Amino acid sequence: MSLQKKAQSELMRRLCEAPLSLAKKPTIMYTASMKFSETFIPTLREAPADAVIASHRLMFRSGMLRKFANGLFAYLPLGLRAFRKVENIIREEMNAIGSLEIKPSVVAPGDLWKESGRWDSMGEALLKVANRTGADLVISPTAEEAVTSIVRDELSSYKQLPISVYQINTKYRDEIRPRYGVMRGREFTMKDAYSYHIDEKSLDETYQKMGKAYRRIFQRCGLTVMPVRADSGAMGGSGSEEFMVGSAIGDNTLLLCRACEYAANVEKAECAPDYDAPAAAPQVPPLEKIATPAARTIAELCAFLKTDAKTFVKTLIYRAVNVELDLSNAPGCALLKRVRPTPAAPAVYAEAFFAVCIRGDIDVNEAKLAAALKAGGVSLASDADVERLTGAPVGFAGPVGLAAMPVIADETTTALSDAVTGALEKDVHYRHVAYGRDFAPWLVADVRTVKAGDRCPVCGGELYEKKGNELGHIFKLGYKYTKSMNVRFLDENGASQTPVMGCYGIGVDRTLASIIEEHHDDAGIVWPMSVAPFHVVIVPIKYEGAVKSAVDAIAAGLEKSGVETLIDDRNERAGVKFNDADLIGIPFRIVVGDKNLALEAPLVEVKRRGEREAKLIPVDAVVQETAGMVFDELMKVG
Amino acid sequence: MSLQKKAQSELMRRLCEAPLSLAKKPTIMYTASMKFSETFIPTLREAPADAVIASHRLMFRSGMLRKFANGLFAYLPLGLRAFRKVENIIREEMNAIGSLEIKPSVVAPGDLWKESGRWDSMGEALLKVANRTGADLVISPTAEEAVTSIVRDELSSYKQLPISVYQINTKYRDEIRPRYGVMRGREFTMKDAYSYHIDEKSLDETYQKMGKAYRRIFQRCGLTVMPVRADSGAMGGSGSEEFMVGSAIGDNTLLLCRACEYAANVEKAECAPDYDAPAAAPQVPPLEKIATPAARTIAELCAFLKTDAKTFVKTLIYRAVNVELDLSNAPGCALLKRVRPTPAAPAVYAEAFFAVCIRGDIDVNEAKLAAALKAGGVSLASDADVERLTGAPVGFAGPVGLAAMPVIADETTTALSDAVTGALEKDVHYRHVAYGRDFAPWLVADVRTVKAGDRCPVCGGELYEKKGNELGHIFKLGYKYTKSMNVRFLDENGASQTPVMGCYGIGVDRTLASIIEEHHDDAGIVWPMSVAPFHVVIVPIKYEGAVKSAVDAIAAGLEKSGVETLIDDRNERAGVKFNDADLIGIPFRIVVGDKNLALEAPLVEVKRRGEREAKLIPVDAVVQETAGMVFDELMKVG
Repeated sequence: MSLQKKAQSELMRRLCEAPLSLAKKPTIMYTASMKFSETFIPTLREAPADAVIASHRLMFRSGMLRKFANGLFAYLPLGLRAFRKVENIIREEMNAIGSLEIKPSVVAPGDLWKESGRWDSMGEALLKVANRTGADLVISPTAEEAVTSIVRDELSSYKQLPISVYQINTKYRDEIRPRYGVMRGREFTMKDAYSYHIDEKSLDETYQKMGKAYRRIFQRCGLTVMPVRADSGAMGGSGSEEFMVGSAIGDNTLLLCRACEYAANVEKAECAPDYDAPAAAPQVPPLEKIATPAARTIAELCAFLKTDAKTFVKTLIYRAVNVELDLSNAPGCALLKRVRPTPAAPAVYAEAFFAVCIRGDIDVNEAKLAAALKAGGVSLASDADVERLTGAPVGFAGPVGLAAMPVIADETTTALSDAVTGALEKDVHYRHVAYGRDFAPWLVADVRTVKAGDRCPVCGGELYEKKGNELGHIFKLGYKYTKSMNVRFLDENGASQTPVMGCYGIGVDRTLASIIEEHHDDAGIVWPMSVAPFHVVIVPIKYEGAVKSAVDAIAAGLEKSGVETLIDDRNERAGVKFNDADLIGIPFRIVVGDKNLALEAPLVEVKRRGEREAKLIPVDAVVQETAGMVFDELMKVG
Repeated sequence: MSLQKKAQSELMRRLCEAPLSLAKKPTIMYTASMKFSETFIPTLREAPADAVIASHRLMFRSGMLRKFANGLFAYLPLGLRAFRKVENIIREEMNAIGSLEIKPSVVAPGDLWKESGRWDSMGEALLKVANRTGADLVISPTAEEAVTSIVRDELSSYKQLPISVYQINTKYRDEIRPRYGVMRGREFTMKDAYSYHIDEKSLDETYQKMGKAYRRIFQRCGLTVMPVRADSGAMGGSGSEEFMVGSAIGDNTLLLCRACEYAANVEKAECAPDYDAPAAAPQVPPLEKIATPAARTIAELCAFLKTDAKTFVKTLIYRAVNVELDLSNAPGCALLKRVRPTPAAPAVYAEAFFAVCIRGDIDVNEAKLAAALKAGGVSLASDADVERLTGAPVGFAGPVGLAAMPVIADETTTALSDAVTGALEKDVHYRHVAYGRDFAPWLVADVRTVKAGDRCPVCGGELYEKKGNELGHIFKLGYKYTKSMNVRFLDENGASQTPVMGCYGIGVDRTLASIIEEHHDDAGIVWPMSVAPFHVVIVPIKYEGAVKSAVDAIAAGLEKSGVETLIDDRNERAGVKFNDADLIGIPFRIVVGDKNLALEAPLVEVKRRGEREAKLIPVDAVVQETAGMVFDELMKVG
């Protein structure tokens, strides 16, 4: 028996020694070298007038892209080569974690969108059209409905789960103001993945794998991304993570830690407390009213009272709409009634007012406040509402004795034991205000705006701010679509259950544009090897005679090695060719000239796109050396 | 000098010995083996009720495809693997002839379509939509306009020409009655290429290359195509070629030669003359009227006159509309006026009548007749029109003495020297009619319907008929778009010129479906290796213990060799797994069972999908042997 086992293992060993090795690494997408005159790379000196960011300018100037209309573009050959490489990196990493590629139609039946409710809720960004037979169609912006409908039809047993599928396909979103080239177009290509699970644990496993795959994808693309979690990021269980790149035109403000990996959208960012809890029995004089004529703002009060904004309980009156939080026991809310906007929606208070207290030196973050109140939106109350509710003009609100509405205290106020605040009377403030002694809020919450210089909630390091653009998003969707579209499966015990769902997107065009944003200089693009449309450009000073022969031989050698080579065979001045080579950003440039070639030991010039100095290399070593450098880099990022 | 030359050539030789060989052949698209339980292949016992053709049935039954709505489908993982391989074969062959891949948006501005005129002329098959800003958009069915607009903007000099670009992209055509699955869907994927040239000669070069590339594409896909030229095919200069596959549900009737490559659509097919020219001075009695009571049809007349239909000059009165041919000198047409339907359109006669003579045993082909008359359409004249124009009821028309309209003689009539024909009187015919002596047509043309059994116009071989479906089309477009969209370039002499254009399409979905039509049996699909979603399926009788170890080792060995392998690890009866393997059509099946594995010299069973008999192979030879067979086949068709 043991002998048999040994034979078996020997057999396995022999089997694994594959006889033909055609598997490849890294992926080679294009195998033939090309001549500049035989491709179609219409470079431009000037970018279009509306191109205000580097990627937009450079994609046009390098002949990667052209525009049909606002938000509608064509990738030309050079642009598409880079695009396909980004696409392929995404595809390889999705395949590597077992997600399965599918291809739903781009034009989808409107009926599916009516089932999920997004036919109405998505608004005008959804492009709808009725066809000649009167059927409602949408030009898909995402595919939750389409994919869920397939899974619904095929799913019967828990044994089929988890299912993880993705597509890399054309999408359309009717942006009202498309701009920044493909960074915000109307038609775009997205990788969108969807997963279905028997339970949250299984969902979390796939979610974690996706997070890792996303990190690899962006790393392979040469991108510095900031993964931004919905929660503090200190532990697992996060329900969503956005992958951001820094961008001056970014839609998002991010807070990042200089010391650890913490990154958060300002709308959710937290920080470490920058205060100590007050001593147990504070030796604070009793509450005292003081006249503060002609001082309404915190700055005026600080000057008048010769104190610091940090000793103020700033109090702002907010109007919130569609509040889901239960206010039945909240001050001043006895008469409010909850209603359901639609039968399926949760019950909400259409309108409610709140006094929000926060330490005087910091600002309330309205997104965090809305989240704490589970409100559809919040905004500062009108002057008239402030006077009605506080009995005083704007500038004298305070929590002491305020009964007309619930008081929401930011966590910072809980540390204030000898503070100043408005006294609900014109030109009057309180001093020696102590939290707990002189007022008690209805709710304590973190609603502060975190800003650069605040401390990281995870490690205490210094936070800094950055504008960011979202490239990808992974999201635990929960039951939104599987419930509304009635997806069911039988569990191990034969009971009918609803699967839980995740979705995971990456904008391909936006990723490509962001690579250029991160990798360019004044002369043009500086492609990372992994996504460069060509690895090497060969520039003959004049493409004729011995130079031509050498160029053709080098190109043939590189082609045989799998290096993607562009030969600039144009009858142009060397300066024009060098400028174009820099503009289109090919990682290695080999210059072949008759003088260097006529030397006893013939030389060519090799230059890395990002570097200033060229190296002279013997012509008979150039293929081996360049190919070696190309593959070293491909392997490194792969 | 000669020494220097020798050194140079030695240098070139050394350069071409590439140091790293990562170039690959054949293309490996997927490198990892997969487990059935980890993919998503929902096979079905029953096909949908509307699936009447094999490919439609099998794409659903094998879990390749699902339907969202009429004409809108999703490719599932198995289907997409095959789809991507077809796509990639097309891409490789397009790249090989120097066509450049681009990616215009699928949603295109309506303005471009208004420029070309197709906004109106394409009718309801064009899906139009206005977006939220009121801009007119189309969901592109082809991209002549989009590509021409790019070329227009970038083209300045003859030096940039020729330009040949292609895309493989989503298209939409609002078919009123989509059917046969992806064979005629609403959304589909098409490879469409467009080329621009300084002159017809350059266009012809690209056109010829495309024709060769198309032949290679279909050959690599394992398809038997019938290239059908617009002209006789005997020489170059053809302006269009359709690539057809035989199909019982085909839209086209084709005539093919058993002896040579001749193939033509019945609407254009010609045949070798099946008659001799009459002797120079025929010894024919003079024209003679005969009473033919109660004989109106050719059959009745043959019986009555005891002769053969081949001796009749059958004469049919046709009504033609929008006739472009100049009729100013034609009999009976003096009063007809030419008009222009629109200012840009050519002048036409709105309606005209013709007497069409043809030998009694053959039929007039209306498509050929319309082409000969340059007419918008032709149809048999009404009985009233026949009586008005011939002076006799239907059945007695003939060319002798007919002056009310032009006589069009099919070439067959020119050989008739002792024929029978109608005498323009009720119950009266002529006999001893001689072409040339007794009547002279206004126009001689080939308007006969060629049918099976007729002789090939090229080689004289026997023609046979077949129904066909169009997979691809190459077409010399001429100046239609470049003129209407005003594309210009400066020629060598600095004169402004309009480029001439070609377009070249292949339906990817239809090609895939046609492969299944040609390669299936009662049990399922029988994939050609080049497009098989997996090359090998391994079926363990029970995926556990020693069998599992062997299966995993074989799969690992195949994976290392670059062979795409599916492991059917499901806990199902062997019969179920065998049926599914046959249904999804994987070229090689390796069965691993514990009995064969327990032999002193362990064996596994290898079976080719198309063959009945399995072969027993020693387990330690199976990777090498199977991989060898897989690559032999890939190389053969590649």
